[in-house]
Amino acid sequence: MIGADHQQERLKTIGWIVGFVDGEGCFSITLQKSSSLLTGWQVFPEFVVTQGAKSLQALSDLQKFFGCGKIFCNRRTDNHKEDLYRFCVRSVSDLQEKIIPFFQDNPLRTAKQQDLEKFVQVLRMMKDRKHLTFEGLKEIALIVQTMNRKKASRFLESSETIRQASFKR
Amino acid sequence: MIGADHQQERLKTIGWIVGFVDGEGCFSITLQKSSSLLTGWQVFPEFVVTQGAKSLQALSDLQKFFGCGKIFCNRRTDNHKEDLYRFCVRSVSDLQEKIIPFFQDNPLRTAKQQDLEKFVQVLRMMKDRKHLTFEGLKEIALIVQTMNRKKASRFLESSETIRQASFKR
Repeated sequence: MIGADHQQERLKTIGWIVGFVDGEGCFSITLQKSSSLLTGWQVFPEFVVTQGAKSLQALSDLQKFFGCGKIFCNRRTDNHKEDLYRFCVRSVSDLQEKIIPFFQDNPLRTAKQQDLEKFVQVLRMMKDRKHLTFEGLKEIALIVQTMNRKKASRFLESSETIRQASFKR
Repeated sequence: MIGADHQQERLKTIGWIVGFVDGEGCFSITLQKSSSLLTGWQVFPEFVVTQGAKSLQALSDLQKFFGCGKIFCNRRTDNHKEDLYRFCVRSVSDLQEKIIPFFQDNPLRTAKQQDLEKFVQVLRMMKDRKHLTFEGLKEIALIVQTMNRKKASRFLESSETIRQASFKR
């Protein structure tokens, strides 16, 4: 009987994580300048869930469930009542081996699912090391442009990109 | 086997609803002036979940699951990309008989649980018709002041309230 209860609780927890991430989660890809890479740009995928200090426990629950990620505090200096906390998974292997498989087994139920699919697509390209080539980077940037939290504009608009694109033709 | 799969899906859906409401839900109590009531004030409890047009389906899922509530569209005239939709349950009997029992069986896992408990407390006072007396209203207003979406300030600050409070002494 205890086993059955435990299994029920686990299924509810899986559902809770999907719902909470549908509400508060963010799958984002950032392209940042980097002088140490040949392309001049680095790709940063990140899975983030943000909560106020009063709900820090919910983030710890996520961290414990996934067995990865870190919790950071964004101290509030404005007139907001409480500090904000962010549960972040930035490790590409944790994203590939823990986060993505979970959401492939348990799909999101909002439009965030489309973001997740694009996120998965970029992670797959990274696995194939396409992000280390200029052509791959451009493809990634175009995908990021269609995501809710688009952060590719600096790459797509930079004069360096335009120069390199001209060079490639 | 189909039965077991169905049961698993149902448990995940229950978990999803709790998680989604932990993220996007709001239990609010509003005190509004009303000339038709002896106290001069009406109490409006409301359970709301908001989503962009792209995730309207998730709100329809909630409506279907709870078997109550309405979905309203807040048309966006600013530069936002999509209209906002609100799933709202305002009927006191639906709140008392459908929404609250669900969350009593399946507690929220964030600080929103504290708001829910205050919401339940106010609904219980309404069932006991305490919101129709000035003393009850004052008690409700003080509870609302401690909720995240406090909407009692007009009642607590109004000169009418102060006059009535003086009169009561």
